[in-house]
Amino acid sequence: MPLYKLSFFHFGGRAEISRLMFAYAGKEHEDNLVQRENWPELKPHTPFGQMPMLEVDGEKIGQSVAIANYLAREFGLYGKTSMESCQIDQVVCLIQDLKNAKVKAMYEKDEGKKAELVKIHTEELIPKSLAFFEKMLKNSQTGYFFGSDITLADLIVFDLTWKLVKSTPTFLDSYPLLKENHNRVGSISQIKAYVDAREATET
Amino acid sequence: MPLYKLSFFHFGGRAEISRLMFAYAGKEHEDNLVQRENWPELKPHTPFGQMPMLEVDGEKIGQSVAIANYLAREFGLYGKTSMESCQIDQVVCLIQDLKNAKVKAMYEKDEGKKAELVKIHTEELIPKSLAFFEKMLKNSQTGYFFGSDITLADLIVFDLTWKLVKSTPTFLDSYPLLKENHNRVGSISQIKAYVDAREATET
Ligand SMILES: N[C@@H](CCC(=O)N[C@@H](CS)C(=O)NCC(=O)O)C(=O)O
Ligand SMILES: N[C@@H](CCC(=O)N[C@@H](CS)C(=O)NCC(=O)O)C(=O)O
Repeated sequence: MPLYKLSFFHFGGRAEISRLMFAYAGKEHEDNLVQRENWPELKPHTPFGQMPMLEVDGEKIGQSVAIANYLAREFGLYGKTSMESCQIDQVVCLIQDLKNAKVKAMYEKDEGKKAELVKIHTEELIPKSLAFFEKMLKNSQTGYFFGSDITLADLIVFDLTWKLVKSTPTFLDSYPLLKENHNRVGSISQIKAYVDAREATET
Repeated sequence: MPLYKLSFFHFGGRAEISRLMFAYAGKEHEDNLVQRENWPELKPHTPFGQMPMLEVDGEKIGQSVAIANYLAREFGLYGKTSMESCQIDQVVCLIQDLKNAKVKAMYEKDEGKKAELVKIHTEELIPKSLAFFEKMLKNSQTGYFFGSDITLADLIVFDLTWKLVKSTPTFLDSYPLLKENHNRVGSISQIKAYVDAREATET
């Protein structure tokens, strides 16, 4: 097995999907939690001056989606056909659009405009995407998004909703299939153990 | 061969990489150029209310990157190993970050802030990415980004630089390997024919 090392800050953010895949697949890896004060030193040694960074036997990979797709291929979480991989990519892309909208709101300096962007993200963009996910699950035979088994798609949607459901248990009540999918993923023993440990350490 | 139909507005934007792949691979497809006034009617019939949309034998796919990756897999432009696909993904992700920064600037309403965002995009973000691409090409044996042949990576970088080089022929002079790669891609007969036809029609 290759030696994996994943570097990111202490929070979940763009690294969490890869951590979830490591947890689900039970693959050993070094979780390098970088302190803010050590980041300037590491930054020039990352491929694109950003994290997350994954090292695979020393080979450095940047860009969270490239990392997630790579691990998904390696761990058998990227679908069984080219069309299944494409369906997974669509989910990943929708989540990136949400993340980008959130980052845009976070970095907005004008308070009034920030409030507006946060409102759009929370009240328009997230519900719209959840409705897309609910619709996708209508075709599912197994309660997982695509094909017969769990994939990157289930895990990246779980990553989106996990903390929202934790703080608002009714959060997915209007999306019954998604709620069921969420509970299904969250009750997988490796995921449950990961989430429990995560909630104990997350600051 | 499946029946492909690609729907997008008249300009290049997020559909152009897929059009370039169709051109390169010589695969027949319907290029459905949607007029602004017809978009509201089509919008609810797309997977995510946006374009581009690809139909493969009637199955609808949204999200430009999901579409591009799918076509790359189908046309043999996605690398030969999982690590090559990952390297390609990194390039695609870098280009998405650029596109998102550009869109953010385009939609900024405050004129002063817009000018600042355009400046950051043009004078910081683009040169930074071009430098990353130049560095990647240092490992190339063939003048193509990864592996022994052209991939989605070469085409998506060409899509980024093509019009910039057209309007400023010296644009890539500080990036000699990238310039050579650009000329190599641009002189492939199918690409050349596509670009010539495109330049004749683009408004
Ligand atoms: N598109 C990139 C974005 C990466 C990114 O924005 N990383 C942030 C943390 S989420 C970062 O490294 N910030 C520190 C810096 O840029 O110096 C990805 O998905 O990996
Ligand atoms: N992340 C999406 C973004 C798609 C997008 O923003 N599409 C725009 C055109 S570039 C659109 O459809 N705009 C019309 C609308 O939203 O009604 C992708 O890469 O496909």
